[in-house]
Amino acid sequence: MNIIELINKKRLGLIFSDKEIKYIIDNYMNGNIKDYQMSSLLMAIAIKGMTDNEIFSLTKYMLNSGEKLDLKEIGEVVDKHSTGGVGDKTTLIIAPIVASCGVKVAKMSGRGLGHTGGTIDKLESIPNFKVKLTKEEFFKEVNDIGLAIVSQTDNLVPADKKIYALRDVTGTVESTALIASSIMSKKIASGAKKLVIDVKVGTGALIKNIEEATKLAKLMNKIGEKNNIKVICILTNMNTPLGSNIGNALEIKEVIDILHNKKENNLKELCIELSSHMVSLGLEISYEEAKDKVIENINNDKAYNKFLEFVKYQNGDINNLKESKNKYEIKSPKEGYLNEINALELGKLSMELGAGRENLEDSLDYGAGIILNKTLGDYIKRGEVLMTLYTEKNLKASIMNTPIFTINKEKKEKEPLIYKIIK
Amino acid sequence: MNIIELINKKRLGLIFSDKEIKYIIDNYMNGNIKDYQMSSLLMAIAIKGMTDNEIFSLTKYMLNSGEKLDLKEIGEVVDKHSTGGVGDKTTLIIAPIVASCGVKVAKMSGRGLGHTGGTIDKLESIPNFKVKLTKEEFFKEVNDIGLAIVSQTDNLVPADKKIYALRDVTGTVESTALIASSIMSKKIASGAKKLVIDVKVGTGALIKNIEEATKLAKLMNKIGEKNNIKVICILTNMNTPLGSNIGNALEIKEVIDILHNKKENNLKELCIELSSHMVSLGLEISYEEAKDKVIENINNDKAYNKFLEFVKYQNGDINNLKESKNKYEIKSPKEGYLNEINALELGKLSMELGAGRENLEDSLDYGAGIILNKTLGDYIKRGEVLMTLYTEKNLKASIMNTPIFTINKEKKEKEPLIYKIIK
Repeated sequence: MNIIELINKKRLGLIFSDKEIKYIIDNYMNGNIKDYQMSSLLMAIAIKGMTDNEIFSLTKYMLNSGEKLDLKEIGEVVDKHSTGGVGDKTTLIIAPIVASCGVKVAKMSGRGLGHTGGTIDKLESIPNFKVKLTKEEFFKEVNDIGLAIVSQTDNLVPADKKIYALRDVTGTVESTALIASSIMSKKIASGAKKLVIDVKVGTGALIKNIEEATKLAKLMNKIGEKNNIKVICILTNMNTPLGSNIGNALEIKEVIDILHNKKENNLKELCIELSSHMVSLGLEISYEEAKDKVIENINNDKAYNKFLEFVKYQNGDINNLKESKNKYEIKSPKEGYLNEINALELGKLSMELGAGRENLEDSLDYGAGIILNKTLGDYIKRGEVLMTLYTEKNLKASIMNTPIFTINKEKKEKEPLIYKIIK
Repeated sequence: MNIIELINKKRLGLIFSDKEIKYIIDNYMNGNIKDYQMSSLLMAIAIKGMTDNEIFSLTKYMLNSGEKLDLKEIGEVVDKHSTGGVGDKTTLIIAPIVASCGVKVAKMSGRGLGHTGGTIDKLESIPNFKVKLTKEEFFKEVNDIGLAIVSQTDNLVPADKKIYALRDVTGTVESTALIASSIMSKKIASGAKKLVIDVKVGTGALIKNIEEATKLAKLMNKIGEKNNIKVICILTNMNTPLGSNIGNALEIKEVIDILHNKKENNLKELCIELSSHMVSLGLEISYEEAKDKVIENINNDKAYNKFLEFVKYQNGDINNLKESKNKYEIKSPKEGYLNEINALELGKLSMELGAGRENLEDSLDYGAGIILNKTLGDYIKRGEVLMTLYTEKNLKASIMNTPIFTINKEKKEKEPLIYKIIK
């Protein structure tokens, strides 16, 4: 076997054997296969695709590249994953809801890059919050309070980490085969046997249309089946941002508002949906029963109290969330219905304000970000504030011209939040 | 503009503007675009292809990356190129033939890599032969004797050099767009306004079938036209090796035998064909007239004497060609007609004997190689010698088992040597 022959094979659209995929992962990890060879191969895979069996092998050997978490000491947990979007703080809302219903959550999360935020960054915007726990501390917390969220250990699927970093800079992110094997190898390594995946679809997401998202969801279901994991995929709308706050500490504030039952929006709706599926899976009850329980635990503050318990357990101080000193109100230049909010552009803007990082070494301004003062479908008068920007920077006037809001005379029909559920 | 967006664009099969291609070449050369990004892009190009206009732009900006040779001081020359094959020593036979007919040849050649040999390596197997000349020495030789062959200067199309080296190790060699722009940028930079290209087709060549070769030839004609260069492409059979000798000094011996009119084979036939087209182009006479002249100059030793003059001018000593000390005769295990000789396997075997290099730093055994003792269509008796291997190494018995010869009871019809001429 040799890598050039293998690259040529995939360039011609031929199918790899299990052994060939093992060769590729092993030799990329030991440095025999160079980055420039791997990126060429990844492009051939992104264009020519992979069969289910190739994807099973790829997932298996990525998984085998590192440590696998054994959750025996905890017992059954239900995990959750999102394919990533702008203003997506669902994990921080769902985890306490689900835990308050008696389903254990032992979650490892990552940091954000580019316009998508990371759960760990959001948690670190809570003063003194500890995201690095030992395995023993992590397990103890889950056993004590039913919930823990920590940063990923370096040794969890190192092959995915190395390949993902390369895909990110070589235009090979958008590939169903590569996305599915990347997500599933990490989730299998994390040890959960039940998993709810929020597959984001739309302009602000990796996956642009429902057809592609369906393909990805079915593929992840199959990989789950192959690995003895029950997977439910929920295809959700990411044409518009979730909730009204973007930016780390600002999002924590919104998490609190939702859990404290002070706010109704698409974010809350989505969290109830995802939580209900997780509780249904975890307690082996019907979706309807689970949903009743979820709503009850929001209304009676059990979910909110679980969140406070969790923050305290990991040493966080919820009372001193940062807010950046400069505020800029962006006003509407015209009158009409707010028909579109461009999630991708909002994400990029938020990054420029200091809330996101371009490179993994960049530090964050936890108090920076955006609050949307209006929501989709609102009737806007000329001069009304559409959003407020928070930053430590002094902004140039040109930043105000980012094309984020679409305002028209006619009101556009509301899009569904949940497109499809694929079990 | 940013490289990731451009890679994504080509992954989706979209078309680059002239400006975008300039951006890619400029930024790859200045290091802003990394090898792993370029290889991903090259793979997308190899699979999705390029329009004629994209290829014109690519050729133009590769060309602009370095020096262009101005041949004003020499006047009109006719150049020749081969897409590369096993045992291809045509340049060394054709150049003196054409020069002896009064058409100037000012040629820059390269070294070999893998199973294909390079003209410069073959010349260096002649003791004391000088392949590095200054531009002034190069021009003076062409003006004095009508012929010079030197090694390429480093500054001739450096973008092609860098890209080719990357393609070689990333499975992106086989792309019509990339092959055409690579060949033509070098040829345009070399300064000739008339060009004959030998497009090799078959198992031993880069291009496996006539359809693909036709596409490549038409593309090179178009690029020629766009750049005011008259291009003739000859599609020739590379299913079987050219001539009987493979390996550097062994090939020089065959060059002498052909020019000295001591040997008749497919190599001689091909050289007459290619020379006739070059002479026809150079003297602006008909192909038939040119062919008469070519055959005459082989018969009357003018071509042979021109070769001796050329070798002497560049300081070579033709009388002491090396022959490696160990000889192995490979005998036929069966009786029948010799129907196939696998050129690719012969090339690889020759490399193992020491005649080729795996990496550009490897040194060569100039005396190593293979002499075929039989030719296609011969009737072979059991135990007759099929080929003789020359090497300084001690070979293992297993090397004799390389599947090179196909011998059958029925005689296979002879394939044509010249498939097609595309002007």
